[in-house]
Amino acid sequence: MKRIAVLTSGGDAPGMNAAIRAVVRKAISEGMEVYGINQGYYGMVTGDIFPLDANSVGDTINRGGTFLRSARYPEFAELEGQLKGIEQLKKHGIEGVVVIGGDGSYHGAMRLTEHGFPAVGLPGTIDNDIVGTDYTIGFDTAVATAVENLDRLRDTSASHNRTFVVEVMGRNAGDIALWSGIAAGADQIIVPEEEFNIDEVVSNVRAGYAAGKHHQIIVLAEGVMSGDEFAKTMKAAGDDSDLRVTNLGHLLRGGSPTARDRVLASRMGAYAVQLLKEGRGGLAVGVHNEEMVESPILGLAEEGALFSLTDEGKIVVNNPHKADLRLAALNRDLANQSSK
Amino acid sequence: MKRIAVLTSGGDAPGMNAAIRAVVRKAISEGMEVYGINQGYYGMVTGDIFPLDANSVGDTINRGGTFLRSARYPEFAELEGQLKGIEQLKKHGIEGVVVIGGDGSYHGAMRLTEHGFPAVGLPGTIDNDIVGTDYTIGFDTAVATAVENLDRLRDTSASHNRTFVVEVMGRNAGDIALWSGIAAGADQIIVPEEEFNIDEVVSNVRAGYAAGKHHQIIVLAEGVMSGDEFAKTMKAAGDDSDLRVTNLGHLLRGGSPTARDRVLASRMGAYAVQLLKEGRGGLAVGVHNEEMVESPILGLAEEGALFSLTDEGKIVVNNPHKADLRLAALNRDLANQSSK
Amino acid sequence: MKRIAVLTSGGDAPGMNAAIRAVVRKAISEGMEVYGINQGYYGMVTGDIFPLDANSVGDTINRGGTFLRSARYPEFAELEGQLKGIEQLKKHGIEGVVVIGGDGSYHGAMRLTEHGFPAVGLPGTIDNDIVGTDYTIGFDTAVATAVENLDRLRDTSASHNRTFVVEVMGRNAGDIALWSGIAAGADQIIVPEEEFNIDEVVSNVRAGYAAGKHHQIIVLAEGVMSGDEFAKTMKAAGDDSDLRVTNLGHLLRGGSPTARDRVLASRMGAYAVQLLKEGRGGLAVGVHNEEMVESPILGLAEEGALFSLTDEGKIVVNNPHKADLRLAALNRDLANQSSK
Amino acid sequence: MKRIAVLTSGGDAPGMNAAIRAVVRKAISEGMEVYGINQGYYGMVTGDIFPLDANSVGDTINRGGTFLRSARYPEFAELEGQLKGIEQLKKHGIEGVVVIGGDGSYHGAMRLTEHGFPAVGLPGTIDNDIVGTDYTIGFDTAVATAVENLDRLRDTSASHNRTFVVEVMGRNAGDIALWSGIAAGADQIIVPEEEFNIDEVVSNVRAGYAAGKHHQIIVLAEGVMSGDEFAKTMKAAGDDSDLRVTNLGHLLRGGSPTARDRVLASRMGAYAVQLLKEGRGGLAVGVHNEEMVESPILGLAEEGALFSLTDEGKIVVNNPHKADLRLAALNRDLANQSSK
Repeated sequence: MKRIAVLTSGGDAPGMNAAIRAVVRKAISEGMEVYGINQGYYGMVTGDIFPLDANSVGDTINRGGTFLRSARYPEFAELEGQLKGIEQLKKHGIEGVVVIGGDGSYHGAMRLTEHGFPAVGLPGTIDNDIVGTDYTIGFDTAVATAVENLDRLRDTSASHNRTFVVEVMGRNAGDIALWSGIAAGADQIIVPEEEFNIDEVVSNVRAGYAAGKHHQIIVLAEGVMSGDEFAKTMKAAGDDSDLRVTNLGHLLRGGSPTARDRVLASRMGAYAVQLLKEGRGGLAVGVHNEEMVESPILGLAEEGALFSLTDEGKIVVNNPHKADLRLAALNRDLANQSSK
Repeated sequence: MKRIAVLTSGGDAPGMNAAIRAVVRKAISEGMEVYGINQGYYGMVTGDIFPLDANSVGDTINRGGTFLRSARYPEFAELEGQLKGIEQLKKHGIEGVVVIGGDGSYHGAMRLTEHGFPAVGLPGTIDNDIVGTDYTIGFDTAVATAVENLDRLRDTSASHNRTFVVEVMGRNAGDIALWSGIAAGADQIIVPEEEFNIDEVVSNVRAGYAAGKHHQIIVLAEGVMSGDEFAKTMKAAGDDSDLRVTNLGHLLRGGSPTARDRVLASRMGAYAVQLLKEGRGGLAVGVHNEEMVESPILGLAEEGALFSLTDEGKIVVNNPHKADLRLAALNRDLANQSSK
Repeated sequence: MKRIAVLTSGGDAPGMNAAIRAVVRKAISEGMEVYGINQGYYGMVTGDIFPLDANSVGDTINRGGTFLRSARYPEFAELEGQLKGIEQLKKHGIEGVVVIGGDGSYHGAMRLTEHGFPAVGLPGTIDNDIVGTDYTIGFDTAVATAVENLDRLRDTSASHNRTFVVEVMGRNAGDIALWSGIAAGADQIIVPEEEFNIDEVVSNVRAGYAAGKHHQIIVLAEGVMSGDEFAKTMKAAGDDSDLRVTNLGHLLRGGSPTARDRVLASRMGAYAVQLLKEGRGGLAVGVHNEEMVESPILGLAEEGALFSLTDEGKIVVNNPHKADLRLAALNRDLANQSSK
Repeated sequence: MKRIAVLTSGGDAPGMNAAIRAVVRKAISEGMEVYGINQGYYGMVTGDIFPLDANSVGDTINRGGTFLRSARYPEFAELEGQLKGIEQLKKHGIEGVVVIGGDGSYHGAMRLTEHGFPAVGLPGTIDNDIVGTDYTIGFDTAVATAVENLDRLRDTSASHNRTFVVEVMGRNAGDIALWSGIAAGADQIIVPEEEFNIDEVVSNVRAGYAAGKHHQIIVLAEGVMSGDEFAKTMKAAGDDSDLRVTNLGHLLRGGSPTARDRVLASRMGAYAVQLLKEGRGGLAVGVHNEEMVESPILGLAEEGALFSLTDEGKIVVNNPHKADLRLAALNRDLANQSSK
């Protein structure tokens, strides 16, 4: 393989630039040329494609967002979109593609591979909800940003006997809530993977103040409900504390990536190039037990594929990501004390 | 004066701990004893008063919030509350008081002085809207926190062609919005001190994208309206961009104070002790042109008093704080370009 | 077990407070009482021991250092010291101990266990050089701090065509250098685990500038030699660039722990209590492949003990920690390009 | 004036990019064209000059260093260098120049003005030692970085009863040491503007520990002597504490500028353009009592010139910068207590 391309797709995540840099630099060190594609599959279809050299990615490893920019482009799910994209790849002499994004973007990588353009997916999203990897690029940074802001809220809530409901991202996965909640010493953590009892939530708050706590912080994953709704539900269930809501939302997507995210992204980017160099595609890169691993994106469950097709042609996820609920239990042990 | 007390009142602000530390250490170095009062005037009335020594304020200068905690206590506006408080001060042998808080808390300081207990006010609030000072304790930190988070939003908005409305604190004063907006390179800044035209706001956004900008950030002071309302107003006026709202709200109150806030708080705390040592009270400390200054809290406008009583007994503010609107003009010059 | 104690020993590391908090809170949730021991084994011997409750560890999870303070106390290697310590433990009714520190402190834990006081060790050190765990408490924070400061040096070195030799901690282990070097996009990383050729170092610098780089950063683990010595060696080998040296040294030990370190410390602290509750001691807690694990501190290699005694009574380390040199190779691929 | 140029000269400082951005954007908003000059006067002489548009400075306000890069170029003090530079300016149709740098670079601005090319200087240096301004661009960030790292050292020193000598930049001026020392709660601050007595330094350390302090931090401006020398001097004078040295040195030059530096740089950049638009040159911009001011670079002292020529043709500084030693006194009051 002489020339490959790299794109970012779906929501942006801190560390995407570090991954792009690794793809570019590793490919060059392997004697390949690299092209960048602007705005994901949209740019592939419209031909927004340009050469990158080692200098193109200088001074990017520490920057948030993605300098290739990203976009959602559902049209790439259709054959027509794919064929247009492939035409552009051919025009630029591109033989393989690295796709950095959510698992939505993996399907595009699968299609490209089926059409003869080996493509490899990298998990880039803050939510940590992608199959085939222990951690996604951007998760560690999102947790760090959440914790930094939770620490701030603690200062002010402790000065005023306040209860804060803090909404963090995580549509399907409670990972950000669990990690940031434990790290910030949250009093309660509410995630989509676990039922909660609103009366218990309210009585925990009351018991906390009774035991001498000066404040209470409840970290809530957005997948459960919004912070505002949750606060209303608490009030309806009898909460009489000085209750405030904060939504950290989009803040978690930005910022300079943590060292850990930069290292993970660098390893994954280089590994993807290695796979392409061997002519392999239709794979998603992951980290498992600290080692780089790859999984077929589509195929048989018993062969480790992330997704399978049913006889009716529906896509099923073979091993859906599950947040580690032992962390929820741990936090109950560490927080539900008469702490300040 | 042999023994003084210190309290924090109203909303907390970063740097309050640095101010308390300065009061305590400076008083000790002047041979005085210092007591802390918990939760502001409420603690004064209920007698939650305790001795502080130099070690009590060790390792506090870098911490957000206030370790003396704060509370709003409107009952102290009534004579009955004041008399109860004075009884407690007498009981503890306290002869003077330093009050750190918003200008609401200055009135309590005035009353204590009238009752024979010289009290001095320090401006502690993030909004920078207190009369008698160029800067309040906490303002610089709030701006820094806003900018840090605005920088984060820029990363992610630039990856996606997004428009962000970012609400920051500032009920009457646009200072936080103006400073953080300029520092973060915001595209538009909306403050209570200045009329805005929603059609112009929307056409600026459109013109920005047309000129090649990859994102737009509008910083909005809460005193204008909420971020959600503003976004609705924009949509009603025809905005067709990918519009998101973030409210930095309470995040701005927390966090370790900036160096500048710590220095300002240290200078003000020490200065307040100096005034009390000279037996002076009924004064508010401020910084003007980098120098420590004091103003009578209540009195004649021509004598520099912050507040005066009308013949009908109403309180008037003599020189209400005004945000510097030249900053708004500056930002228009620097932002309304065809920038990325 | 009804009452346990916790101490920190050796060099301090960020996250030690989070570990202490977890020990205290988990023990209380298991119905045990907890005592703190000040300044490590020194405090154990001198009886500087006091009860802790849930509130004692409120507001500590985000703080650097160790509020129990630490000390090196070689006298505890002697039987006499141990017996004195045990006397104190008995006096306070303490039945088990959690020791947080470097592997030097593990030996004390072994001795206590042999004397009938089950003790469990937790790996607290920034160097990541402790056997029996993939990561130590404090390592992630040290890397984060190094990267933050390396990012700063890049700003200024890029403005001036400068070469920086940046010394980071790591007496025996290059982990901090490898991780922070990759994350900061260092041009070269020099670690004790790998030979380096000074002529190659110098010619890499020259080649980098020739290829258009605006600056060069060399990250050096202190275990190799000091930054000043390394710079002299480079100059002796013909380096003619504008060369500067910075030693990040002690900065890496301080600072608020990262989210990852707080979560790791919380899990380890709770796990140690679990082991003690089961009456188990002489064990060191670790994390391996993301799971909590424990290893006998002293025993047979084939039973997984960290240390063994030879027939001559000498201590051998069974599986000495080794930095992952694949990271060094990765960085060569990613950095040795004609990057800016 | 239709076309102006901007360059950065001397040591880099955080906020230089914000100043460049302001010059470019303000000039465009005034209908002028702007060129950038790479690497200061060196690039002027060699013709490394290129057009900038509003997009050229997008996404730079938050970045450390200077994207125009900087260099020291003593040859510009000679007429020959100046004439070469002017030739280049003419070739590019440039009629005025903004120079951002230390006061060394002001002299170049003076010469250009004398040769008919109005040039305006902006004070960009972290040391805050430039005449004609209360604050320089970069000073606030340098103090912030110093304090952040001093806070880290406090964590670790407090865990171990350690004394730290921390060297900060400041060849002639103690401003960084004074501000960061007060903000970090340093125990002693040593600056070039004030004599120190080494015996007193040592006895203060001893007294501090005797009074129960857990650590001591001495902030030292490099202009006094190096940290290593100072530590030797302390030891020679009998210090028997556990003494360590850290040099924050170059770290202080890097990093994202603080909000305050960005606002200051933005105001100054825009103001410089205003002056050039009026055809005025040979001036240095400053901030005094929060207002923008300008001073003649060379001229009569009584007319406010920063520098004057003696009859013998020597340059004299009319009002040399002086650090505010009241801050030193304040710190003695706040620190020399029996604090932890």
